[in-house]
Amino acid sequence: MSTTFENAATQSVDVNGTNFVYREIGKKGGIPLVLLHHLTAVLDDWDPRVVDGLAAKHHVIVFDNRGVGGSGGSTPKTVEEMARDAVAFIGALGFRKVDLMGFSLGGFVSQAIAQQQPGLVRKIILAGTGPAGGEGIANVGAVLQDAFGKAGAANKHPKHFLFFTQTSNGQTAADGFLQRLKERTKDLDAPVSNETIQAQIAAIHAWGQGDATKLGTVQHPVLVVNGDDDVMVPSLNSFELARRLPNAQLSIFPDAGHGGIFQHHAAFVQQALAFLQQ
Amino acid sequence: MSTTFENAATQSVDVNGTNFVYREIGKKGGIPLVLLHHLTAVLDDWDPRVVDGLAAKHHVIVFDNRGVGGSGGSTPKTVEEMARDAVAFIGALGFRKVDLMGFSLGGFVSQAIAQQQPGLVRKIILAGTGPAGGEGIANVGAVLQDAFGKAGAANKHPKHFLFFTQTSNGQTAADGFLQRLKERTKDLDAPVSNETIQAQIAAIHAWGQGDATKLGTVQHPVLVVNGDDDVMVPSLNSFELARRLPNAQLSIFPDAGHGGIFQHHAAFVQQALAFLQQ
Repeated sequence: MSTTFENAATQSVDVNGTNFVYREIGKKGGIPLVLLHHLTAVLDDWDPRVVDGLAAKHHVIVFDNRGVGGSGGSTPKTVEEMARDAVAFIGALGFRKVDLMGFSLGGFVSQAIAQQQPGLVRKIILAGTGPAGGEGIANVGAVLQDAFGKAGAANKHPKHFLFFTQTSNGQTAADGFLQRLKERTKDLDAPVSNETIQAQIAAIHAWGQGDATKLGTVQHPVLVVNGDDDVMVPSLNSFELARRLPNAQLSIFPDAGHGGIFQHHAAFVQQALAFLQQ
Repeated sequence: MSTTFENAATQSVDVNGTNFVYREIGKKGGIPLVLLHHLTAVLDDWDPRVVDGLAAKHHVIVFDNRGVGGSGGSTPKTVEEMARDAVAFIGALGFRKVDLMGFSLGGFVSQAIAQQQPGLVRKIILAGTGPAGGEGIANVGAVLQDAFGKAGAANKHPKHFLFFTQTSNGQTAADGFLQRLKERTKDLDAPVSNETIQAQIAAIHAWGQGDATKLGTVQHPVLVVNGDDDVMVPSLNSFELARRLPNAQLSIFPDAGHGGIFQHHAAFVQQALAFLQQ
């Protein structure tokens, strides 16, 4: 039976005494692709079309970092500590070389992993993310507050405002994305705690005041991708990442926001597979 | 026998009394993809890997616009007139709907065609190009002069300086590209005349002083693509195109210049086929 992300079992692994939850799909044996999640996200927040699309050619690992969802421990307040936790998780699974795909906060963590453990990483996909000190990143608290306010008033999910443009295309894509996240109905992950969210926001805020000058030392092939109108990590940060990283390819989707890779999932999967295969 | 670009016959068609030369490969029947050439280019200046790659899925037409190479007539001094000539050529071949791929000057012409005859066009690929009035475009004369000077001093082809970065990767890619252009040895096109080059430079200069405000009315799906370090049409112009065009996807290749689609031909062909298929 070929497993899809919808029916992939939730597994767990001991990481230096803390239980981390994860799911894996796709053929084992090659270099695995490890996905690093966004603020507030748990295992159930990844678009099944993206995960299944990538798993057509890769062994894909989705996990909750320390203190997130079903994983134990307390979420640290810096991206650098999150990166060390992710490296420990990857080590606990026995992998010596991985590809990374980081979305938003997960993209910050991926950049930190590439700098802490360059030999562990082959290629990196950075989606909806930006460099340390990037424009607007430190405003995450205000952006969230605004979106939660609008979502409450409109009786919509905040991701309608945070991940997608307010155009007809964007809002239709939001509906489709949120429907896809509901396809899985069993063996669901635990939600994030408020304590975890506060720690993640603190980490994002600190990242937004950080310094990206060392990014020029990251030699890995990188695919930087985003929508052209991201309100969470403004799209300009994707240009900035591609400019600073010596071996980065940039892809920007039209009429799309932070969740551009979910809105344009078919085109994104095709691009990502081509990039990982090159 | 399956024809490749290397052995595609040079054909000609009467366009309102003027002979236009062209070559075509790929399966006929679908919407053809018409390629629009750069300053100084003739039929033999298209990378055979790009043309053959696109022709795997599309009926591809390569042609010399009025006054260029083997085509008759005098090259006009504006992009808008070049667009009218291209539309007349497309009509002479009997096509009612085409995809366009414009490289550099050909990208300017493609934008003008999309505005003059929106109904003629389905999708557009704009490579190594920029909007009217775009930064640095009007400097083409000085950039050419500088590159020809360096090429003479280094005993290299000017495209080493104009189309590729000066890094080791870029210069190796330049060698490979120039070798591929020599694969065809028979039935070669005529070179461009100095008069044609002067008219093309005048047209580029005028375009560089033009106004892109109407670009927001171009509703076609567009793939904008370039290297990250283009000295002929600075890469910032690709961002600007993607920003102004309402339905544009942007792709920027690393360590690559104006000829980024030739340097990264395999990745580009894959992206272009995916874009045309969507």
